[in-house]
Amino acid sequence: MATKANSIPHPTLIKGLHNRWHCDIPPVVSVKPGQTFNIECIDWTGAQIGNNDSSDDIKNVDLTAIHNLSGPIAVEGAEPGDCLVVDILDVRPFDQMPWGYTGIFELNNGGGLFAREFDSKACKAIWDFNGIYATSRHVPGVRFAGISHPGLIGTAPSPELLATWNKREGELIAAHKDEVPAVAFPPEPKGAYVGQDLPKDVLEKIYREGARTVPGREHGGNCDIKNLSRGSRCYFPVFVKGANLSVGDLHFSQGDGEMSFCGAIEMAGIITFNCSIIKGGTEKFALKQPIFLPSPIDPMYSAKLVFEGISVDYHGDGKQYNMDALHCHSTVAYKQAALNAITYLMKLGYTREQAYLLLSAAPVESHIGAIVDSPNACVTMGLPLGIFEFDILPKEEGLQKRDFGQCAIRSDGVV
Amino acid sequence: MATKANSIPHPTLIKGLHNRWHCDIPPVVSVKPGQTFNIECIDWTGAQIGNNDSSDDIKNVDLTAIHNLSGPIAVEGAEPGDCLVVDILDVRPFDQMPWGYTGIFELNNGGGLFAREFDSKACKAIWDFNGIYATSRHVPGVRFAGISHPGLIGTAPSPELLATWNKREGELIAAHKDEVPAVAFPPEPKGAYVGQDLPKDVLEKIYREGARTVPGREHGGNCDIKNLSRGSRCYFPVFVKGANLSVGDLHFSQGDGEMSFCGAIEMAGIITFNCSIIKGGTEKFALKQPIFLPSPIDPMYSAKLVFEGISVDYHGDGKQYNMDALHCHSTVAYKQAALNAITYLMKLGYTREQAYLLLSAAPVESHIGAIVDSPNACVTMGLPLGIFEFDILPKEEGLQKRDFGQCAIRSDGVV
Amino acid sequence: MATKANSIPHPTLIKGLHNRWHCDIPPVVSVKPGQTFNIECIDWTGAQIGNNDSSDDIKNVDLTAIHNLSGPIAVEGAEPGDCLVVDILDVRPFDQMPWGYTGIFELNNGGGLFAREFDSKACKAIWDFNGIYATSRHVPGVRFAGISHPGLIGTAPSPELLATWNKREGELIAAHKDEVPAVAFPPEPKGAYVGQDLPKDVLEKIYREGARTVPGREHGGNCDIKNLSRGSRCYFPVFVKGANLSVGDLHFSQGDGEMSFCGAIEMAGIITFNCSIIKGGTEKFALKQPIFLPSPIDPMYSAKLVFEGISVDYHGDGKQYNMDALHCHSTVAYKQAALNAITYLMKLGYTREQAYLLLSAAPVESHIGAIVDSPNACVTMGLPLGIFEFDILPKEEGLQKRDFGQCAIRSDGVV
Amino acid sequence: MATKANSIPHPTLIKGLHNRWHCDIPPVVSVKPGQTFNIECIDWTGAQIGNNDSSDDIKNVDLTAIHNLSGPIAVEGAEPGDCLVVDILDVRPFDQMPWGYTGIFELNNGGGLFAREFDSKACKAIWDFNGIYATSRHVPGVRFAGISHPGLIGTAPSPELLATWNKREGELIAAHKDEVPAVAFPPEPKGAYVGQDLPKDVLEKIYREGARTVPGREHGGNCDIKNLSRGSRCYFPVFVKGANLSVGDLHFSQGDGEMSFCGAIEMAGIITFNCSIIKGGTEKFALKQPIFLPSPIDPMYSAKLVFEGISVDYHGDGKQYNMDALHCHSTVAYKQAALNAITYLMKLGYTREQAYLLLSAAPVESHIGAIVDSPNACVTMGLPLGIFEFDILPKEEGLQKRDFGQCAIRSDGVV
Repeated sequence: MATKANSIPHPTLIKGLHNRWHCDIPPVVSVKPGQTFNIECIDWTGAQIGNNDSSDDIKNVDLTAIHNLSGPIAVEGAEPGDCLVVDILDVRPFDQMPWGYTGIFELNNGGGLFAREFDSKACKAIWDFNGIYATSRHVPGVRFAGISHPGLIGTAPSPELLATWNKREGELIAAHKDEVPAVAFPPEPKGAYVGQDLPKDVLEKIYREGARTVPGREHGGNCDIKNLSRGSRCYFPVFVKGANLSVGDLHFSQGDGEMSFCGAIEMAGIITFNCSIIKGGTEKFALKQPIFLPSPIDPMYSAKLVFEGISVDYHGDGKQYNMDALHCHSTVAYKQAALNAITYLMKLGYTREQAYLLLSAAPVESHIGAIVDSPNACVTMGLPLGIFEFDILPKEEGLQKRDFGQCAIRSDGVV
Repeated sequence: MATKANSIPHPTLIKGLHNRWHCDIPPVVSVKPGQTFNIECIDWTGAQIGNNDSSDDIKNVDLTAIHNLSGPIAVEGAEPGDCLVVDILDVRPFDQMPWGYTGIFELNNGGGLFAREFDSKACKAIWDFNGIYATSRHVPGVRFAGISHPGLIGTAPSPELLATWNKREGELIAAHKDEVPAVAFPPEPKGAYVGQDLPKDVLEKIYREGARTVPGREHGGNCDIKNLSRGSRCYFPVFVKGANLSVGDLHFSQGDGEMSFCGAIEMAGIITFNCSIIKGGTEKFALKQPIFLPSPIDPMYSAKLVFEGISVDYHGDGKQYNMDALHCHSTVAYKQAALNAITYLMKLGYTREQAYLLLSAAPVESHIGAIVDSPNACVTMGLPLGIFEFDILPKEEGLQKRDFGQCAIRSDGVV
Repeated sequence: MATKANSIPHPTLIKGLHNRWHCDIPPVVSVKPGQTFNIECIDWTGAQIGNNDSSDDIKNVDLTAIHNLSGPIAVEGAEPGDCLVVDILDVRPFDQMPWGYTGIFELNNGGGLFAREFDSKACKAIWDFNGIYATSRHVPGVRFAGISHPGLIGTAPSPELLATWNKREGELIAAHKDEVPAVAFPPEPKGAYVGQDLPKDVLEKIYREGARTVPGREHGGNCDIKNLSRGSRCYFPVFVKGANLSVGDLHFSQGDGEMSFCGAIEMAGIITFNCSIIKGGTEKFALKQPIFLPSPIDPMYSAKLVFEGISVDYHGDGKQYNMDALHCHSTVAYKQAALNAITYLMKLGYTREQAYLLLSAAPVESHIGAIVDSPNACVTMGLPLGIFEFDILPKEEGLQKRDFGQCAIRSDGVV
Repeated sequence: MATKANSIPHPTLIKGLHNRWHCDIPPVVSVKPGQTFNIECIDWTGAQIGNNDSSDDIKNVDLTAIHNLSGPIAVEGAEPGDCLVVDILDVRPFDQMPWGYTGIFELNNGGGLFAREFDSKACKAIWDFNGIYATSRHVPGVRFAGISHPGLIGTAPSPELLATWNKREGELIAAHKDEVPAVAFPPEPKGAYVGQDLPKDVLEKIYREGARTVPGREHGGNCDIKNLSRGSRCYFPVFVKGANLSVGDLHFSQGDGEMSFCGAIEMAGIITFNCSIIKGGTEKFALKQPIFLPSPIDPMYSAKLVFEGISVDYHGDGKQYNMDALHCHSTVAYKQAALNAITYLMKLGYTREQAYLLLSAAPVESHIGAIVDSPNACVTMGLPLGIFEFDILPKEEGLQKRDFGQCAIRSDGVV
């Protein structure tokens, strides 16, 4: 290849991994404001899931070891109270690994939105990446452009913020001790990892106190917002010197809600950043949680078939779901909209598992409709028509049921 | 005006009004499938609210008399189990009445999403319609294109469905007897109205049993989905012969969630329909709730500033909101995102009341982000940059606070 | 209808008509900056075309009497050199007249892009308006949302500018004396009309000197830009005191290029304006021609099938069309792209006339591709997939030819 | 990096280069239908232009050596008369070379749309790529997402088609012998190159007869259509066995018209393809030129400031440009719209050269408006507001002139 000698590629900076949030994890690299750089990320499970046709790896996944994060990255000059501006300039899979996966986790190992209702058994869809598009041999009939994004990105907590998290979640866990699946996960030394050569007592403290990575929190974290995609600009509150940004859980694509828990198309790959700092920005912009500007290149699938969901008679139970007059139950409404969409997709020939995986992984849009029309909330879920290779619209003659086979299931055949 | 004699305008059909849902309300008009027709609608309160600068009319609004619906409209040939396809071809204000209103209701008379947190007092914004745009002397600095739609549209319930509603909601009311605001409203003869000359015993039965119109239900109803806008095509389940479609609560514009309860820009006006029937469509398309195709002319405000909301530390209470591991609290996350947006708007100079009204009325998009990342849900709220007449983006130097005055408040000055 | 007494509708102002451009036509109405008002417009031909199934009215249309314009409207305070800001707030058909038409004109009476190649005979499609949508019994299989706009809108010329036009076009006419169709039309008293009670000598001067309305010019005029639609904001140079804005030729919809000359869906209706003035704006913004901001509600038909056109071998003539190295022939490239699209539509079963009418009237997008790759220009024409009621994409098995009948033709049957 | 052993990356296939179109250039690689593969492309000039601050390399560029194409690629089973379906799955710069350039060529060495009017001297802007965005130290104040695409892509001509081209263009050249710049370029052995080990007589024949690559032709070629971007699907006619696809001239971004000739952001990089064949597709789809489906991820810059251009008084010459009544002069109208935009940008502080480069390189949209309103054509040019880091809208107080310096110019300082 002929190139000019005056080309200066963006550097790839990555020297460490960790899977807990803790203020004492030192940065593995330091960047200047305004510098563009790449970060390599392994997939969230640390390569526990393979490109094959069995879901046994999903069934047996070790969730104490997640999420595998790259970082922390210190940004020169950042101090508590500042706003860290992060331009997510690109997100892409490794050239050597043009595939990802979406999984339904078992009820007692990870769960997912319908884990109880469906008594979920492990299922999987492998997605092949062809440039901007994903397709799957396990969910035929669709092809869509990825809204690629980091599922998980956040700044490091201060000691005080970490203590708040642990107290807040500890109380919740205490109040729901025996639930399956568990409502939250406390700090857990088993599986904890910080890929740096640190003194033993520091490591032990991190492993003993470090917050788990599943929930999103005030610093960002595992927010699973599909529109935090390549091209977006994000504003994070800074809690420690250097901000100490970490990132991982790259998604090739995801639907609003990422319902099957491992519902995005999970991938390993490269993310490109450029960071800057606004002094005192937390107060200037009232950053209680991050804010962001979406990307101009998010896919334009404007034509949609939209399903409404009302927070009543959920899954046919005849019940009224309302918490109080000011808290219509939008989660139940979301689930009802999703069930309505799943049922429709099953009329088109998809299995329930395929439909569940598809709605989790495709660029599905879910909006809050009515949330103050007590006692019922209304949430919508829109399926882009353009991702299907056939016409899914309601027809006079009804829907044509096709044969799409089945997704990857367990080797014992239990679904 | 010079016109050809061979012009045949679409007919305007409207002969009746009602404000309860009941299977015994006879249709006031019958239409053929494929016929385009207009329906006139008064505003949802029945003209209780005026174009003025005081919110006393909001404070004293009589909510037993709502929602004022036009219909029922029978569609020839429709039978229970069919799908009623409704093309919403246009929605517009009366030429004689180019204005609408958005209200914050009092805690003990209507409430709203933040009624308790804000101890809400009546507030109001009058919006002037200039073609496709709305502006308000009570919320200066913004101008936006309306996503005009019916807040409330639905088919009539069968006797069985009505009984189900009354039982389901009756149990909820019984379980929350003393809450303020009330969690739901039982059938109530006071204020009930059916604008037809019916036998007294029929009227009394309707008034005694008729379901209230606030919540959306299986037939559609008050779903307050902003994208059910002019140009959309909706598929409703049919429960009674003729389908008996009713419509009202026209909105010039609304944000996802319509948070202040009377949060849309409420208006009186004309809606244009064309209906058709798909025999057996309820089963063919698994219509547990309506489904729809959005309009191609919904406004394109693609650039947005998006606020994240996490279901923790709501309104600074330090609490963890999680119902159980499969029910992250998306309503709290939505409220948190809204509060974050309100706080930001206040930094720009809007009062809390103006911000609350604006987020309710403008084409704000609210998406479900994370709903399975227990214990925290994440919901986003996106403000279109293009509706503001000034730059609202975060700036190095912070946000410039302007003076936007105040919205319409009560004559006693209490806010 | 229940309305509040404090409603003040926007006034409808219209007292005159004219069909020539001349500085001596006095304004028929005067408006204040910031005032919203309606203007009624008859269709461009003055109701010469009927809602029927014969194209004889197209064949015999009197083109000396066009375009019927409403105005002039004086804006208080406007002076030469200012910029007139016109908000086009709404454009809609009369309720009493929910239809419009698209015509192919005869070679020797109006012509059109392919008048010579097709030896055009009069053809017509009547379009029915159902809210935001148009459909036609003469072009079945399509339904689309209108990008409604004024085909013709402009400020009055100064005496100097009018003289420039007449000189410039006079020389062109002189140089192409015997061409059919004529290259341009000189001032023509026959058919000229100013609907005001003016002194006879003034009228005669206007009729003798008044510029014809077909071409767009420095003041705007008949630019036929589909995106000058309801919701757009336009900036016009002002040449006379009061600006003297005139408008007409309302289009329910149009494709880029409006190729069949009467190619838009022509209609009578109401346009809503709000005008303001920027002093000295012509110089401030270098307004040699108008500039504008498109509407946020132009239809979103993002998925398209795009045809390329190259400026060679036009219509199979084997020729190379290049004017010189800096003037690749984009008009021929546009025509070639259109021919390619017409041929494709004919494979789907449309007649050549139907295809020609459809591409003229539907929201077709035509972009300049290559214009400096001498000797060939490249222009594209994109057909929105979403306007068709069937799948038009290329298929392995080829295209299915359907029977769409024929558009309205002459009573003598000659096509 | 942890990866699963079962990853199979897409192969990178490239073994040859050529810079002429000829049927006798053998394919350098053969692919199966349905296979995804990468092709590396050097920039169109073959690395003649450097990442520096002088335009001397533009001034002295050798245009006999362009365009450097990668290919030909044979697709198994393709035969004359078939349709070659090419999915352009991705287009991106080399990681080692995150920059590109836009050039204004000298009047007598390449030219460009305004070469004569501006008496063009060499100018250049270097663009830095940061993920999906481009910025330039030579054109400050803008940042935009790239609509990355191949400027040049096409199938190989048959002997007959090549002969047609050479005859057609030869006649044109003969008719315009002494024009500067030349109207077209005949086959030219100087600079011709085919990077394969072929018999000398074959090479000499190719060099003697091979069509130059500047113009787009029936097979596609240098069409410079910005929306032939990553994610698009293109349908090409096949003229020789194997189709023999070649590609090059990768653009990171381009405006409609690519007006400065080397107006796109030229880059070296990788393009990802997947090809399939539709037997007999040329006839099935009437493929006189290629057709295509645009990508769903083309940037959404919906808010625009649009400039109208009318084909009169071009560049202040007072002339009327009309070829005949059916050929309004859309190229002059395009140029006028571009000049109006350039003048406006100069009021904002850009130099004429910077404005010319910016309009060539940014995602500017240019639509055909009126093309049948004889004697004047109207073309529009829309500048996306979202690419500017400041507000470019017309303001009451006029436009604020900023200092943006100057683009890269010649070392002798002549502009």
